[in-house]
Amino acid sequence: MTSTDTRFRVGLLGHGTVGAAFAALLPQRADAVAGVTGLRPEIGGVLTRSQGDFDAILADSDLIVELIGGIEPARDYVLRAMRAGKHVVTANKQLLSQHGEELWACAREHGVQLRFEAAVAGVVPVIRVLQESLAAAHVERIHGIVNGTTNFILSEMARTGATYADALAEAQRLGYAEADPSEDVNGKDAAAKMAILARLAFDTPVHLDQVVYEGIEQIAPDDIEYARDLGLGLKLIGTAERVDGGLSVRVHPAFLYPGHPLASVNGPFNAVTVESDAITEITMSGPGAGGPQTASAVLGDVVSAMIPPASTPPTSGALEIVADVVSAFYLHLEVPDNPGVLARIAGVLGDHGISVKSVVQKGLGDNARLVMVVHAVLESRFFTALDELSGLGVLRTAPRAIRVIEEQFA
Amino acid sequence: MTSTDTRFRVGLLGHGTVGAAFAALLPQRADAVAGVTGLRPEIGGVLTRSQGDFDAILADSDLIVELIGGIEPARDYVLRAMRAGKHVVTANKQLLSQHGEELWACAREHGVQLRFEAAVAGVVPVIRVLQESLAAAHVERIHGIVNGTTNFILSEMARTGATYADALAEAQRLGYAEADPSEDVNGKDAAAKMAILARLAFDTPVHLDQVVYEGIEQIAPDDIEYARDLGLGLKLIGTAERVDGGLSVRVHPAFLYPGHPLASVNGPFNAVTVESDAITEITMSGPGAGGPQTASAVLGDVVSAMIPPASTPPTSGALEIVADVVSAFYLHLEVPDNPGVLARIAGVLGDHGISVKSVVQKGLGDNARLVMVVHAVLESRFFTALDELSGLGVLRTAPRAIRVIEEQFA
Repeated sequence: MTSTDTRFRVGLLGHGTVGAAFAALLPQRADAVAGVTGLRPEIGGVLTRSQGDFDAILADSDLIVELIGGIEPARDYVLRAMRAGKHVVTANKQLLSQHGEELWACAREHGVQLRFEAAVAGVVPVIRVLQESLAAAHVERIHGIVNGTTNFILSEMARTGATYADALAEAQRLGYAEADPSEDVNGKDAAAKMAILARLAFDTPVHLDQVVYEGIEQIAPDDIEYARDLGLGLKLIGTAERVDGGLSVRVHPAFLYPGHPLASVNGPFNAVTVESDAITEITMSGPGAGGPQTASAVLGDVVSAMIPPASTPPTSGALEIVADVVSAFYLHLEVPDNPGVLARIAGVLGDHGISVKSVVQKGLGDNARLVMVVHAVLESRFFTALDELSGLGVLRTAPRAIRVIEEQFA
Repeated sequence: MTSTDTRFRVGLLGHGTVGAAFAALLPQRADAVAGVTGLRPEIGGVLTRSQGDFDAILADSDLIVELIGGIEPARDYVLRAMRAGKHVVTANKQLLSQHGEELWACAREHGVQLRFEAAVAGVVPVIRVLQESLAAAHVERIHGIVNGTTNFILSEMARTGATYADALAEAQRLGYAEADPSEDVNGKDAAAKMAILARLAFDTPVHLDQVVYEGIEQIAPDDIEYARDLGLGLKLIGTAERVDGGLSVRVHPAFLYPGHPLASVNGPFNAVTVESDAITEITMSGPGAGGPQTASAVLGDVVSAMIPPASTPPTSGALEIVADVVSAFYLHLEVPDNPGVLARIAGVLGDHGISVKSVVQKGLGDNARLVMVVHAVLESRFFTALDELSGLGVLRTAPRAIRVIEEQFA
């Protein structure tokens, strides 16, 4: 970083959960952005309900980030920014699902970018993939879990047998549901997101009013329980698909069989599956909400607006390549079924600071073997211990070791 | 479509499995591409080992697609194309993992795009997401299943108890493994892909030679079986992660716990998980190989090179919005435990062409209920039948119906 980097000024409209997270994230990542783009981003001005002047912020900004939400004045600000030749990044699903055609036409007319990754499925990059990777794909169907609140509630009901009301209260306690959760639980939030995805995937204007939607308020715990006996799991699923030469866009609770790519998406996560003949299916999943996550999606859009497409910049902060790392291991030892042997093996492992997480003996007598998982240890140390085990003269065959990846988000 | 569309000529180098699939796909999607970009793509010329002249094709092309594979002459052609000011799209992982820095520098110097989505994980858009969505993210770790052949073999071994040799033979029979599978099964193919992903995610040059890799040839069926008792499933996992201020890039067989996002990726599919503090984790999955799928990834790159970034074109082929669709349903009816009742209910369903897939009775006497899944039927017809059921006077409460999404790829 040098002080000669050209500054890139970002005008921020809105300072709620996502806006505040974005304002915190941008300075943290400014060095990295400057490395990639040659431009150093900074917040030019912030407009909130009580402070800031839109015209002054607009005049002083290279790009506008709209995180106010709702229709007006967000619509007016976004249009005015684009007419002034500024790129706009927004997370506003209601605005796009009701006034998208007007906004996209304005962007085309003025030759600016209107990016909105954060409007659907948070940090899951479904907008970019539909607009760019799949721009000429003949998409047949999209299935999405695009509301984290309802996915959390349904996951809790399935996991604990809780009623809808109790699971909602738990979601509110953990910050996964708002004080007024109605647009989440009645399906309207998911419907707005599906309208946007359908517009992009099927080359057809789709207004929120054209999406049939149904929420989860009526789901009873015993339906979840009975359906589990049939192998089914319940999700709030958004669907957009070709039907008889037309397009159906809808949101409703639906049961999935265990093999479905969305069946294992639990908690507040979002996921979207896109199907077509040529691609078969792509599934993308990740956190669907959260201030820092949504702010990351906004930042990705800001950076994309700053750089030429498909550029692979020179590396700036090259890291040293490391060969020896820490891993947990599965270990399979063929040994005689003999009281002294386990003690000798455990002794060697202990000498090298290797601790056993679980061990079972398989088979008996001359056919016995020990199968164990050991806790994470520096690999070089583990392989030294293996050599020593081989030298004990008790193993019938060479030890078999396979790495184990421990759970990150257990 | 009109004949006044400007033509966009694509020079195709290589006509193997992917090249032939791309040559077949492009004309099929030319109308759609023209709708999105205003330019009508067509194959300008094809270079194979036995026919075509590179210089003539280059002179006559707006963009070059390189699907020859290997280092030379692919490297020479890609460099000459970029020096001539042409965008290049390639699927060549060996070339990029060994000469990437030279190629990317050439692209920057000449102001052209070098796109390579198809080089890693086929149609799974991990390159675009790392380069664009996550360009300024501080990625902590990438885990990937980036070789479909080995994932198929390990899935088969786990599913059937087959030996490595038998599962490999089955993969070859089904076309998931080549006659000479050595670079797939020894981990080198995955290592090349991880080198490319690590370069993009960690802002560090990574050469194939710096990737530690290990294959699956030594995996025994009993290790898979024993580890399953411990709740573990085996995958060939590529890892790139920050370690003590450095970078580790490696490929080896590894056991995963069932909660890991890659644990449920089976058969010839690929998947990549990207982790960072801000985004938590994003997982993307889909077919990792196959001519049409890889050709789709190439086409996505070609289209991206043709359009301005983040454009949302006007809709051209608007579809009619359809409200009534076909769905399968779960149905919960509270009914008296009475021999005539099931017959009357079945009669009503039959009258409307609704066939029952499975049914169970829960509870007894006054507390009895029927829980069933019915096969897919037009929703309007199903709801008419529900109204009629309600009118029978035998239901103790309103019927509870929830849609069931049937398996697409069972």
